Amino acid sequence: MASVLIREAKEGDCGNILRLIRELAEYEKLSDQVKISEEALRADGFGENPFYHCLVAEILPVPGEPQGPCVVGYGLYYFIYSTWKGRNIYLEDIYVKPEYRGQGIGSKIIKKVAEVALDKGCSQFRLAVLDWNKGAMDLYKALGAQDLTEAEGWHCFRFEGEAMRELAGK
Amino acid sequence: MASVLIREAKEGDCGNILRLIRELAEYEKLSDQVKISEEALRADGFGENPFYHCLVAEILPVPGEPQGPCVVGYGLYYFIYSTWKGRNIYLEDIYVKPEYRGQGIGSKIIKKVAEVALDKGCSQFRLAVLDWNKGAMDLYKALGAQDLTEAEGWHCFRFEGEAMRELAGK
Repeated sequence: MASVLIREAKEGDCGNILRLIRELAEYEKLSDQVKISEEALRADGFGENPFYHCLVAEILPVPGEPQGPCVVGYGLYYFIYSTWKGRNIYLEDIYVKPEYRGQGIGSKIIKKVAEVALDKGCSQFRLAVLDWNKGAMDLYKALGAQDLTEAEGWHCFRFEGEAMRELAGK
Repeated sequence: MASVLIREAKEGDCGNILRLIRELAEYEKLSDQVKISEEALRADGFGENPFYHCLVAEILPVPGEPQGPCVVGYGLYYFIYSTWKGRNIYLEDIYVKPEYRGQGIGSKIIKKVAEVALDKGCSQFRLAVLDWNKGAMDLYKALGAQDLTEAEGWHCFRFEGEAMRELAGK
C-alpha cells in the first residue's frame, strides 16, 4: 500500500487545493457558493501575514511506478481567539477524496492540527460539521470532540451580501 | 439621555473588557470556563500582529456631571478565512450590560463590525448564538443574519484539553 505524508502546503499546491475545495463543496451540496480563485488562495495564504494555513495529504509514489506524488486531501485552518481561553485554532475545511477514505487520512490531518495547536499554545480547536454528515460527526466524536450545538445549544449565524451592506450603510 | 460612542478599544480598556467578558460568560451560564487574564488580553490584542480586535461602547458624560466616560459593552472580532469567499470576519463576543439594553447599542456594534468587514474586503461576517438566547437570535435575524444551523444543519464542534493532547500524542 502506498504511504501517506501529511505536510504543510506550499504555494504550488494551490491549484490542487482549489480542486479539492470544489469537491468538498459539491459533497456538501453547496458548490454554487464557491467564489474563491487560485490567485486569491496564493495571495492570502503565502504572503507575509497569511490569512490561513493549510495541510495537505500526499500519497507517495511506490518505488518503480511512473506516477509522482498525488494530493488527495487537505485541512485548512487559521488562528482565532477565545475570550475564555485565548489563542485557538479553527479548522475551516477538512477533506479526503472519496476513493482514499477509510485509511485514516482524515484522522492523521486532525492529529496534525492538534499538534500545531499545542505547539502554538492553543488549548483547543474548533470546527463545524453538517448534521447529515454522520460519518464525519462520528469520527470527530470518536476522536474526543464535543458537539457544542447538541451540548450547549450554539447556532452558527452569518451576515452577508446585501444584508451586510445595508448594515454598514453602504 | 447620554450619548453612546462605538470606538476601537485601546490597551487601557482591557480591564473593563475582561469585566464584561466575565459578565457575558455569567449570562451564558458558562462562567467557570473563563481562564483569560488582563495581561493576556493586553499582549494578544495590542502587539504587532494582534490575535483579535475589539470595539467598545462608551457612554459619554453629560456636560456638568462629575462622572467620566463609562464602557458598557464590547464586540470582539478577528479575521478568518472562508474557502468559498476568502477573507471574512468572526464576531466572537458581543455584549451590552443589562441596564443599557434596549437603546440600540448592540445594533450599533454590529453595524460597526459590518463597516469594518466591508472596508477590509470581507463579504460576510459570522457569529455563534446560544439557542435559548431568543432576544439575541431575533435581533440578528431582524438585522438580516441567517441561522446556518437551522437553514443548513451546521453543528459547532470543539476539541480541547485531554482529548487534544491525546490526539497530538503529547
